[in-house]
Amino acid sequence: MGGDAAVIRAARICYQSTARSPEADVRLLRRLMSSEPRHNTVFEHAVFRFFVKCPLFVARQWMRHRICTFNEKSLRYCIADREYYVPQGLANTEAYVCHMEASFDLYEQLLAAGWKREQARGVLGTSAYTEFIWTVNAWSLMNWLQKRLDPAAQWEHRQYAEAVLGIYREVMPVTATAFEELVLKR
Amino acid sequence: MGGDAAVIRAARICYQSTARSPEADVRLLRRLMSSEPRHNTVFEHAVFRFFVKCPLFVARQWMRHRICTFNEKSLRYCIADREYYVPQGLANTEAYVCHMEASFDLYEQLLAAGWKREQARGVLGTSAYTEFIWTVNAWSLMNWLQKRLDPAAQWEHRQYAEAVLGIYREVMPVTATAFEELVLKR
Amino acid sequence: MGGDAAVIRAARICYQSTARSPEADVRLLRRLMSSEPRHNTVFEHAVFRFFVKCPLFVARQWMRHRICTFNEKSLRYCIADREYYVPQGLANTEAYVCHMEASFDLYEQLLAAGWKREQARGVLGTSAYTEFIWTVNAWSLMNWLQKRLDPAAQWEHRQYAEAVLGIYREVMPVTATAFEELVLKR
Amino acid sequence: MGGDAAVIRAARICYQSTARSPEADVRLLRRLMSSEPRHNTVFEHAVFRFFVKCPLFVARQWMRHRICTFNEKSLRYCIADREYYVPQGLANTEAYVCHMEASFDLYEQLLAAGWKREQARGVLGTSAYTEFIWTVNAWSLMNWLQKRLDPAAQWEHRQYAEAVLGIYREVMPVTATAFEELVLKR
Repeated sequence: MGGDAAVIRAARICYQSTARSPEADVRLLRRLMSSEPRHNTVFEHAVFRFFVKCPLFVARQWMRHRICTFNEKSLRYCIADREYYVPQGLANTEAYVCHMEASFDLYEQLLAAGWKREQARGVLGTSAYTEFIWTVNAWSLMNWLQKRLDPAAQWEHRQYAEAVLGIYREVMPVTATAFEELVLKR
Repeated sequence: MGGDAAVIRAARICYQSTARSPEADVRLLRRLMSSEPRHNTVFEHAVFRFFVKCPLFVARQWMRHRICTFNEKSLRYCIADREYYVPQGLANTEAYVCHMEASFDLYEQLLAAGWKREQARGVLGTSAYTEFIWTVNAWSLMNWLQKRLDPAAQWEHRQYAEAVLGIYREVMPVTATAFEELVLKR
Repeated sequence: MGGDAAVIRAARICYQSTARSPEADVRLLRRLMSSEPRHNTVFEHAVFRFFVKCPLFVARQWMRHRICTFNEKSLRYCIADREYYVPQGLANTEAYVCHMEASFDLYEQLLAAGWKREQARGVLGTSAYTEFIWTVNAWSLMNWLQKRLDPAAQWEHRQYAEAVLGIYREVMPVTATAFEELVLKR
Repeated sequence: MGGDAAVIRAARICYQSTARSPEADVRLLRRLMSSEPRHNTVFEHAVFRFFVKCPLFVARQWMRHRICTFNEKSLRYCIADREYYVPQGLANTEAYVCHMEASFDLYEQLLAAGWKREQARGVLGTSAYTEFIWTVNAWSLMNWLQKRLDPAAQWEHRQYAEAVLGIYREVMPVTATAFEELVLKR
């Protein structure tokens, strides 16, 4: 919702200014992005909604971000699908896969034996996949991107951040370009 | 952004359920609205953006709400327009209008004498009009509506809340109707 | 930080009133608790800090609450302790324990084989224990309590909520009693 | 609440590390402050409560900050005190004072004529003083300080920020020093 235009319109209401040209808008946006301390509110008028499927251990990091909304598939109400993440190019992945399969086998046995779904899920490893809807404004999105694109972030999470950055570039080209050049300094 | 459909979709991901009929969607939404404790996150996926013009004393109350974004016309950078709110049907409105005019006269004098805009504005009463853009999700909007439609809220603020409720009804008819019947109990 | 006194002081600044007696303070606090729409900000001036140890599946629900701060033991940097939750009074707990032990065995093997901690943790079930520090204001605490004391909440999470309610009663007796009687209706 | 110790403790739980010396704690805290992207949550476990008296136009800027709690003297319920801010060293301050006095005279007349307090306040300029209690965590406090100590911030607001920085230094000397050197670069 909103895109570059929402950010520019929010900035212009503060000064009651009007754009003389698209170039003036780009310059305004770059000034907002690079000013220190930063102007966060103008970027909050653009809002995104994503559907995400990722391993639990990635979702756990993701949901530490608080200025946004999540609704996740609940394993209290749903039965877990037999889907889990397998790291590539490592030794012992056979033992890993074998164990994950065994954990889903046990999960199903426990359910069959009358365990509640919310208790039986305790045996499923955090490489199991989950799904959620994420609604987030552009300011909070950039905060997440900055943290999760960082070389110190977990590799698996970084792959999601790169994909989201690609979408950001398509939907809000002016803001995303300014962000990459002036904040990420890529 | 989103509307009723975004709320329903977010709720359905939790249970991985699919709607069998529009009536089932309405029933789900009414259950979410009336459950205690309430399910707030599903309503946060629908987002609104409003342009508002109101007296400063209304804006001051409005901006106490924190789960939303405001960008306001700045009297540090802009010159205030000679526009102010006059309560109707009261004695002494002549003295009131006369004083407000005098305050704008003085404001202009101070500016002419070299005062900064940010300091000269100190003489303008809180009945002067301001303008802002407000981006807010449906959950936070309902919280504001509940507080500002309350008979104990200031009459002037209530008029804005009634107008916003009308827009809410148009844009999200299922959610707004459930809210009015089950929460506001109108 | 703060306790009952901080709530009362914040309420009294709005009205610039002074307490004539402790009974007047109790009455004020009960009125704030029961008024509809509720007065949340006054309760936000009292702040708690907890140290929590719980299964990952409980922590995942807990960290969905956003108006608070968490810092958690990181399995990117630390090695997981061999500690996990075992539900009581159910069939198949032997198979469950056996599987959890196997998952910690595999975890240690993967680490020994050179896997990163952040990837090896993928085999550990969500019944493994984690630890975190939680800082939360009294308003947000009551929101959590209301949701997690609800009969529909997961039993394991409810045990934590009952324990926290006990602490709340000790630290803020007036507010907690008003909350139990007027909101929880216990 | 908390102080430097709360920040250090929160950071150490992530790594399950223990301090070998006070110097190690200082080094840890400086690393947390200077890392990019920054570690905000650890700073949120220390919480401050301030009592503030300032002109309305300063309060309006202050209350745009959202990660904190305000409770303000209400001019719906209280009668405004005849107190207002007068900028120093400017021409025309006599006309300014004269007008502010006239606005309080009119305010009292309108009240005497039966106007509601919430409507009569519309004539009072934004240089009138208000009072509020502000509860804020150290992270959000630093965000406010950074924005309000900036040379581009309004001079009147900056005086409050300098005073708060002084208190911050006294209460959390390690964190405040790291903040001044590494973020404010004073």
